[in-house]
Amino acid sequence: MSRIKLGLSMRYLGYHIAAWRHPDFDPGSLSRFEAYRDIAQKAEAEKLDMIFFADGLAVRSEDKPAGSLSHDMRNAELEPITLLSAIAAVTSRIGLVATASTTYNEPYHVARKYASLDHISGGRAGWNVVTSWSEQEALNFSRISNLPKDERYDRALEFVEVVRGLWDSFEEDAFTHDKTSGQFYDPDKRHVLDHKGKFFQVRGPLTSARPPQGHPLIVQAGASDQGRNIAAQYADVVYTVSHSVEEAREFYADLKARAAHFGRRDNAPLIMPALAFYVGETTAQAQAKLDELQRLIDPLAGLALLYTYVGDLSAYDIDKPIPEEHFANGISIGSSLIKRARDEGLTIRQLYELIGAGYTVRYVVGTAEEIVDDMQLWVESGAADGFNLCPPILPHSLDDLSAFILPELRRRGLFRTEYEGRTLRENLGLTSPLPSGA
Amino acid sequence: MSRIKLGLSMRYLGYHIAAWRHPDFDPGSLSRFEAYRDIAQKAEAEKLDMIFFADGLAVRSEDKPAGSLSHDMRNAELEPITLLSAIAAVTSRIGLVATASTTYNEPYHVARKYASLDHISGGRAGWNVVTSWSEQEALNFSRISNLPKDERYDRALEFVEVVRGLWDSFEEDAFTHDKTSGQFYDPDKRHVLDHKGKFFQVRGPLTSARPPQGHPLIVQAGASDQGRNIAAQYADVVYTVSHSVEEAREFYADLKARAAHFGRRDNAPLIMPALAFYVGETTAQAQAKLDELQRLIDPLAGLALLYTYVGDLSAYDIDKPIPEEHFANGISIGSSLIKRARDEGLTIRQLYELIGAGYTVRYVVGTAEEIVDDMQLWVESGAADGFNLCPPILPHSLDDLSAFILPELRRRGLFRTEYEGRTLRENLGLTSPLPSGA
Ligand SMILES: Cc1cc2nc3c(=O)[nH]c(=O)nc-3n(C[C@H](O)[C@H](O)[C@H](O)COP(=O)(O)O)c2cc1C
Ligand SMILES: Cc1cc2nc3c(=O)[nH]c(=O)nc-3n(C[C@H](O)[C@H](O)[C@H](O)COP(=O)(O)O)c2cc1C
Repeated sequence: MSRIKLGLSMRYLGYHIAAWRHPDFDPGSLSRFEAYRDIAQKAEAEKLDMIFFADGLAVRSEDKPAGSLSHDMRNAELEPITLLSAIAAVTSRIGLVATASTTYNEPYHVARKYASLDHISGGRAGWNVVTSWSEQEALNFSRISNLPKDERYDRALEFVEVVRGLWDSFEEDAFTHDKTSGQFYDPDKRHVLDHKGKFFQVRGPLTSARPPQGHPLIVQAGASDQGRNIAAQYADVVYTVSHSVEEAREFYADLKARAAHFGRRDNAPLIMPALAFYVGETTAQAQAKLDELQRLIDPLAGLALLYTYVGDLSAYDIDKPIPEEHFANGISIGSSLIKRARDEGLTIRQLYELIGAGYTVRYVVGTAEEIVDDMQLWVESGAADGFNLCPPILPHSLDDLSAFILPELRRRGLFRTEYEGRTLRENLGLTSPLPSGA
Repeated sequence: MSRIKLGLSMRYLGYHIAAWRHPDFDPGSLSRFEAYRDIAQKAEAEKLDMIFFADGLAVRSEDKPAGSLSHDMRNAELEPITLLSAIAAVTSRIGLVATASTTYNEPYHVARKYASLDHISGGRAGWNVVTSWSEQEALNFSRISNLPKDERYDRALEFVEVVRGLWDSFEEDAFTHDKTSGQFYDPDKRHVLDHKGKFFQVRGPLTSARPPQGHPLIVQAGASDQGRNIAAQYADVVYTVSHSVEEAREFYADLKARAAHFGRRDNAPLIMPALAFYVGETTAQAQAKLDELQRLIDPLAGLALLYTYVGDLSAYDIDKPIPEEHFANGISIGSSLIKRARDEGLTIRQLYELIGAGYTVRYVVGTAEEIVDDMQLWVESGAADGFNLCPPILPHSLDDLSAFILPELRRRGLFRTEYEGRTLRENLGLTSPLPSGA
């Protein structure tokens, strides 16, 4: 097993907010399956653990500041479950993780689709459990607003339990397929869930055999107390965003302690923070790659990104700091962004560049050695088990990963040269869950 | 364009109820993607218009007669949207039609997934609209019973309209991708649906570019007055079950008249009845193929199939007629089955063989000439535009199709030797819908 787990986060084919304006980027590829397929196949050739798709069920619908919405690349994408199913057919080892919201789905559908993806891929499916946070999504699902956060998480917990229960519908060897007697399955190895809870009443069973991994991988993203408790009980992998190693260490220790409390084994859940990277032969070359993209940020797109966190800044000069009289939107990340801008004396442009370089996730700039030093520090000091890599621009950044970062990781014995197993669980060193009957 | 349209209905890899017990059938293939893939690729090599998956959201949950449930092959399958997405990646011309229920889904999800499948497949996606009829499905979706039929259909009509509206979110050339100005799309070519109806409030837009077909194909299955009206307005293809050419002609004339009333063009919707087939060099050889499968019907499975329509017959001798004192379940198809059995003097075994040979759809037995005569009669006398072929056992029956029926159809100039277009609509001779703005 690799000492460092690596995922490749592929949404929008790039985590730099201006990726699509780069001369090497083909914006049409956002709607073209072959583009995603080629990247997934390259990632598999490099033996990455998994590809990963964040997801949301709405486009940013407010055009604030006016005119910015049509400058946002996040208007065109493919739906992740269909996309990963298609990729499953043309890959054989890499893990396939798609996000699905517990707020706007039904557990029977989610259990069934991920079970099916697990069958289709021969045991490589993963479900990233999210609760959805935007109000726009509610408007696409006949609701006037999102559920309150506590209720969302209560629903999420029950949702995950129902899905797991449905995955246990049939034991691994339930299907006897006895042509002579006519018995298709052994009735003792079929379990009817008959769940009756606060949010859901789901009888079951599923209409499919037990998934090859037993349960498809469960990934969790959501950092609050309730989010961590779901992760500690049920997640195989936790996807986080941490901006400093200290913050990450605290999160890591807290989550592993919670997991131990629930009797988890195998170092589960594995914790994989997001990491965007700008790498070159020299630090200066790496910085030049970042600078080139930063110059391409459309001020309208930059202001639109900031709008979510700190409100409308379009009336101000973007090459000056945020005026004293401006307050944040009330979102905690907004207040801390404004504080940081003021502490570091950043202009509005510098602030949106700061978060635009990785769509709000942490990014590193440097040579392979510098970046791998950073990764190694995180893993060896108990801040991470690996990283969900957020490439600034695809397929470009994946080539950089292959040329620079992976060889250095391998030189240090931190990353595999060949897959160890066939399933995603095997490659991550996670055991399969025991069947419910056991 | 082919004069006869042909789909291949693939659910459970066979429409003979005992398919899985045939020596040539591999029951493990029901859960194995590669089996479906190979069949789809063969169907594409034969230039069939489309593959088709019926679907349901529950297994038959009642074990009546006792012990029968574990003898039913319909306990293991793959989910159709994931499956067709995977097949999309390894085929290039054949249409891909999956069923999704309007009763247990949300329009935003359905619009998005089929749009994505249409992108992934380069314009080959189709949605078979059904309203679901079984009570077991309700129990998997936190409901104690299905909606009343009128309400189901009112919901279905609104559902289809919302999905179509969401597919019109962006016009075909909306994405300008202007790297210089930073404009990603032309705001005049984006349409916010803002639907506010009885069942749904859906703002939109979708998070993806206009599907390659404009709208993925809409297939409709459901024969009541309400079902026909949805089909007449919005369906591109209607899937039906008719047992006689007269009945089919009546249905055909009625549906085309309703469609004309709604101003439809292009002979839309195309009407494709289900057809199972047993074919051989001679009629006797064809009959022997059917007989072999009929002998494999497990009496428990036969009685379970009849149970749905005529109630529990397990107390009677299956080699005798249904006793006089037995009445049907109250379902109209049940009463007509009992009447037929009595009129024709059928035993219980003969009755379940009759419907088990094609899971209740019409089947024909004969040489290629006999069968193609039948197909030609249907198409030329205004009973059908083509057929949704229901192969008794896969891949076996597909080989029979290639060896016998297709050559005979081609000899008569009734079926293509090469695809005419790239999209499913092009191959069926259906125009794309006009964008909402036009
Ligand atoms: C690292 C990370 C990734 C997330 N990814 C998604 C996503 O792809 N889609 C989504 O709807 N929500 C996503 N979320 C949102 C969470 O599911 C959750 O709704 C939100 O973070 C608020 O909950 P929290 O306070 O527990 O973090 C993500 C959250 C985090 C922390
Ligand atoms: C030919 C045909 C195929 C159907 N296929 C499905 C199916 O795959 N899944 C499903 O849930 N219902 C299916 N249905 C059921 C219909 O959607 C509908 O619920 C049922 O037929 C009752 O409506 P009706 O009286 O209009 O036919 C099918 C119906 C017909 C006639």
